[in-house]
Amino acid sequence: MRKALVVLSGGQDSATCMAWAANRFDEVETISFNYGQRHARELESAKAIAALFDASHQVIDIPVLKGNKASALTSDGSVSDVDLRSELPKSFVPGRNLIFLTSAASIALSQGIEHLVTGVCQTDYSGYPDCRRDTIDALQTAINLGSRGLSEITIHTPLMYLTKAQTVELARSLKMGWEAVALSWTCYEGGEAPCGKCPACELRAKGFAESRYRDPALK
Amino acid sequence: MRKALVVLSGGQDSATCMAWAANRFDEVETISFNYGQRHARELESAKAIAALFDASHQVIDIPVLKGNKASALTSDGSVSDVDLRSELPKSFVPGRNLIFLTSAASIALSQGIEHLVTGVCQTDYSGYPDCRRDTIDALQTAINLGSRGLSEITIHTPLMYLTKAQTVELARSLKMGWEAVALSWTCYEGGEAPCGKCPACELRAKGFAESRYRDPALK
Repeated sequence: MRKALVVLSGGQDSATCMAWAANRFDEVETISFNYGQRHARELESAKAIAALFDASHQVIDIPVLKGNKASALTSDGSVSDVDLRSELPKSFVPGRNLIFLTSAASIALSQGIEHLVTGVCQTDYSGYPDCRRDTIDALQTAINLGSRGLSEITIHTPLMYLTKAQTVELARSLKMGWEAVALSWTCYEGGEAPCGKCPACELRAKGFAESRYRDPALK
Repeated sequence: MRKALVVLSGGQDSATCMAWAANRFDEVETISFNYGQRHARELESAKAIAALFDASHQVIDIPVLKGNKASALTSDGSVSDVDLRSELPKSFVPGRNLIFLTSAASIALSQGIEHLVTGVCQTDYSGYPDCRRDTIDALQTAINLGSRGLSEITIHTPLMYLTKAQTVELARSLKMGWEAVALSWTCYEGGEAPCGKCPACELRAKGFAESRYRDPALK
């Protein structure tokens, strides 16, 4: 029996990955991270998406990322800014994806799960270097060297080389994919409805505009 | 100014690394992890060792490792056992060192620190695959690929190829090294004094027996 652990932030990409994994593996579990992001709205979406697929869902606290002053995502700066020194977006949280994936790997290894699924993408990758496949490859090597004798972990990144429009098409093509995207939350702000102005909302709107479909999460 | 962040568990190895770093860098900060280990005794030692060097010390919670049923170190099994299926010691916590080092890297990157120091060792390596240099090299690559544009991190492992007796000699040779080792705690059990029977105590005693010195932590 092939079992996968999906890193489920609750956003459009991870919602699509959830449907991808549910169509591909015999059993899927999900994990979300609470790392001091500005609001818990996306975690509610993650929970709803997991429930849609009858998948278990656990939320893991990552205190080391909370209140990270280096990122606007976990502090007070504007999430639209770019740090001029590093040319990285100010929403970049150093090490965030690596901590997420090593934490997910620890859980997977402890449960004998060999497949991790994450929605990172280097095509429309928001300027985050830890979303690129070379980073993921190096981390997968580190995880497997560091756990020789246990399971061999594969980190699946089904969206890695897709444009946002192609991710929309992928969700359309997957059983339950559209329902999952309808439950997803991408906006950096909290509130009842997406702000439509932050970089995440803009990127999402651009993807749908380039596809033939209207965002099912918009009322 | 060269600044380092030392991963300080409070054991003999990290105490020696602390002295090594204090002798080598202009400024040293320290970090310890609370991951549901059986007792907090080693964290008290870490705090005392950091204070000995006037270094800042922070303890970071790692909830994902707490109560990991796959390891005797964070659950109820015997820490002396070996898992016959994987041939790994039952005290092995899958992903532990990778989570520690990615967390430390996240803090270092956020503060502009370029040097991490950890006491992992593959010579007397307790059977833990994530203490070997190939794992550390792959992780260092992942960290630096994942943070392009920020600092370049170097993970220093001064004990990697030393025997335990050589680690004792190193501590002797470093300014304040012996005082740091005197404050260290290695035993897997808590209590007032080391149990002398667990694998960690046995390894420590063996190292001192092979050196010319008596363990300064023994009263």
